[in-house]
Amino acid sequence: MTQDAPMGVGVIGFGTIGTGVVKLLASNADVIASRLGFPLRLARVADLDTARDRGVDLRGAPFDSDANALIDDPAVHLVVELIGGYDASRRLILRALGRGKPVVTANKALLAVHGKEVFEAARRGGADVAFEASVGGGIPILRALREGLAANRIESLHGIINGTTNYVLTQMEQGGEPFEVVLKRAQELGYAELDPSFDVDGVDAAHKITLLASMAFGAEVPFKEVPVEGIRDVTPLDIEMAAEFGYRIKLLGITKRRVDDAGRERIEVRVHPTMIPADSLLAKVDGAMNAIAVHGDAVGPTLFYGAGAGEMPTASAVVADLIELAREVRRGSTGRVAPLSTLPEALVPKPLVPLGELHGRLYLRFTAQDRPGVLSHITGQLGRHGISIESVIQKGRGHAGASVPVVVFTHPASEAAVRKALEAIDRLPDVTAATRVVRIEEEL
Amino acid sequence: MTQDAPMGVGVIGFGTIGTGVVKLLASNADVIASRLGFPLRLARVADLDTARDRGVDLRGAPFDSDANALIDDPAVHLVVELIGGYDASRRLILRALGRGKPVVTANKALLAVHGKEVFEAARRGGADVAFEASVGGGIPILRALREGLAANRIESLHGIINGTTNYVLTQMEQGGEPFEVVLKRAQELGYAELDPSFDVDGVDAAHKITLLASMAFGAEVPFKEVPVEGIRDVTPLDIEMAAEFGYRIKLLGITKRRVDDAGRERIEVRVHPTMIPADSLLAKVDGAMNAIAVHGDAVGPTLFYGAGAGEMPTASAVVADLIELAREVRRGSTGRVAPLSTLPEALVPKPLVPLGELHGRLYLRFTAQDRPGVLSHITGQLGRHGISIESVIQKGRGHAGASVPVVVFTHPASEAAVRKALEAIDRLPDVTAATRVVRIEEEL
Repeated sequence: MTQDAPMGVGVIGFGTIGTGVVKLLASNADVIASRLGFPLRLARVADLDTARDRGVDLRGAPFDSDANALIDDPAVHLVVELIGGYDASRRLILRALGRGKPVVTANKALLAVHGKEVFEAARRGGADVAFEASVGGGIPILRALREGLAANRIESLHGIINGTTNYVLTQMEQGGEPFEVVLKRAQELGYAELDPSFDVDGVDAAHKITLLASMAFGAEVPFKEVPVEGIRDVTPLDIEMAAEFGYRIKLLGITKRRVDDAGRERIEVRVHPTMIPADSLLAKVDGAMNAIAVHGDAVGPTLFYGAGAGEMPTASAVVADLIELAREVRRGSTGRVAPLSTLPEALVPKPLVPLGELHGRLYLRFTAQDRPGVLSHITGQLGRHGISIESVIQKGRGHAGASVPVVVFTHPASEAAVRKALEAIDRLPDVTAATRVVRIEEEL
Repeated sequence: MTQDAPMGVGVIGFGTIGTGVVKLLASNADVIASRLGFPLRLARVADLDTARDRGVDLRGAPFDSDANALIDDPAVHLVVELIGGYDASRRLILRALGRGKPVVTANKALLAVHGKEVFEAARRGGADVAFEASVGGGIPILRALREGLAANRIESLHGIINGTTNYVLTQMEQGGEPFEVVLKRAQELGYAELDPSFDVDGVDAAHKITLLASMAFGAEVPFKEVPVEGIRDVTPLDIEMAAEFGYRIKLLGITKRRVDDAGRERIEVRVHPTMIPADSLLAKVDGAMNAIAVHGDAVGPTLFYGAGAGEMPTASAVVADLIELAREVRRGSTGRVAPLSTLPEALVPKPLVPLGELHGRLYLRFTAQDRPGVLSHITGQLGRHGISIESVIQKGRGHAGASVPVVVFTHPASEAAVRKALEAIDRLPDVTAATRVVRIEEEL
């Protein structure tokens, strides 16, 4: 094959993103070739559903349901895996890498859980695996961590990395409507899946922050140990209270580096609704958009913003990866950059900081009978556990005996102490529902 | 040399950035080696001023004033050029490339004006030249354009790419003070140079937008033809009026792709104070921070934010480039990515769109005698040239015969027509000073 011969791309999974990839390879063929030095050409497509019309021209590329045959097809030099999930995708990716064919995937779930196996297979197969599309859609955040900020010791990363939940929270904020109402509308509009739990319970964000934490800190991060909280329990009152105190509530993936006095390095990795200063850039990220704020010791604060999902933005990331891998294949030069930024042999497990050790301001929403003395019981328990209160707000009054919310903003407090206080408070006879906690991140 | 032997870095120019590079190579040596697979080691430093104490430990690396000897030193594998300017820097870069030694530079002025010669020398010498630090300080924006967004046809780019002017404008806004007062304070604080013209007259931003436009559009951009306007004429009144109409004023580098009906592609490249929607992300970028909003046809809107200058942020970009070039040297694989993203042979001159052809809303500030009938003369001339007015504001009234500002926001108008109208208006006997024009960019 000559240096400027076209290189063949096989696409497994012909859904929304796959369709975008096919479109983009055609529509921007000239741009891609002018950057790469040779064309990328769609060589073959595989999907179980071969009947549905995706409305794109395959320009003669074979299309059937046989993903294995696609991988083995000598016309396919680069494999794109877009079927998602854990099983079939894993098997297909390993097959391709085993045959020395580089793989581009958007599968964060697989990489967060089975990344080690996949990267090891890539190394053994002498083929690269690229996954820019798996986090932040079209935002080139993985490249930024791996190369652009490679000279930095990363200190922290805060990301709005799930578009569905950011869309729902933004809508709740704008309309003052409860979660369920907004979610239903989001489902009707296609912004949320029919089974939304993967998004709204924070699982998708947890997959992504697991990958980001690995890259940021050169750490093996056990996905199952990452604490995750979704947005189902966020209420319009929480959002209103946040606004009153100068915050907005965002579902964030957060990861930070912590070094204790003995020099031991541990990392925080977590996903939860978070109050962030309303005047921070991250707070301005609305609707389905994503953004990742990265703080490096040399570069200081940075932020990367863009569409976190969608047909063409995600295809943008997939095809950027194809361009990079095509370059490596043609130059006979794979394994240029370590997939998780740190060389595999230098990746080490780093202990996670337990939530109880977090120390920061907290928003607490109590639900209590509207009776004299309740407030003093609650604040008394907080005081007894050493938690200092910044503000207490009792919003509205119910009829006699009704439950009302009581909102407390604490001064910086140990989360373990707060949990203990809440155990006691939630047992008070006048407290009628479990207390809700929203963490506050000030430094953004 | 074995695969994990250290690689030697020679730093020419031991000022602020050079000092940052020396510090970073030492402080993050472990992180760098864990990503690269071998250490980067400071091998030699050259600067004309060998007397001043920079307060950093050179760890035995030789330091003298002989930049040529540094380049020729076999212990130096990678050369960092940080002296700036056109002449000595050009000579040194060409010398290094001619000897096959890769070069990292932050010199946007040189690359904007002599880029072609430098990139050609790199190709001939079989050595790479990297320049991430030349635009946006620590923000990895060049990598994003070259690789992360490589699958896109870039549509537009709007950048706050000069920290000094953004600092001055932010301060003017916060204190309502005139340009000269704020500039003086900025100079005292070290945010502006003693000779500030390079920054405040937009020249620095013009160098950067020239490079960005080349990368975005695969175009040879003649720096000298880029229209440039600085911020000296921006007044507190302009800033106040902008705020009243929902805008903020930022000095932007702007570049856009335009295709006319005949399919001919031309590009807009310009630097000027610009009113942008106050609720856009770019408008929230305050102080000395930089941000670049890039719109790609597939990815849609993106934004890259971070420190645009300063010792350690700029060193972050320089050392990231060193890591990349070290990798290529060790793999014997230079020229991986075209320096301007598009392959040199595919780079073509693309005609610039003249300012007269711009079409958009404009802010006009007239200075006129406060006499009856003046307003009707001004608006009459605008009407005669087909310019439709959205709002007219006459702020305050002077004593009889004094000059007062009259502010007009136009509907979208042809800039050529506006210029013609202004020629007529500025000749009116009651108009006592040249009319100021600020362009408005809505789509951000």
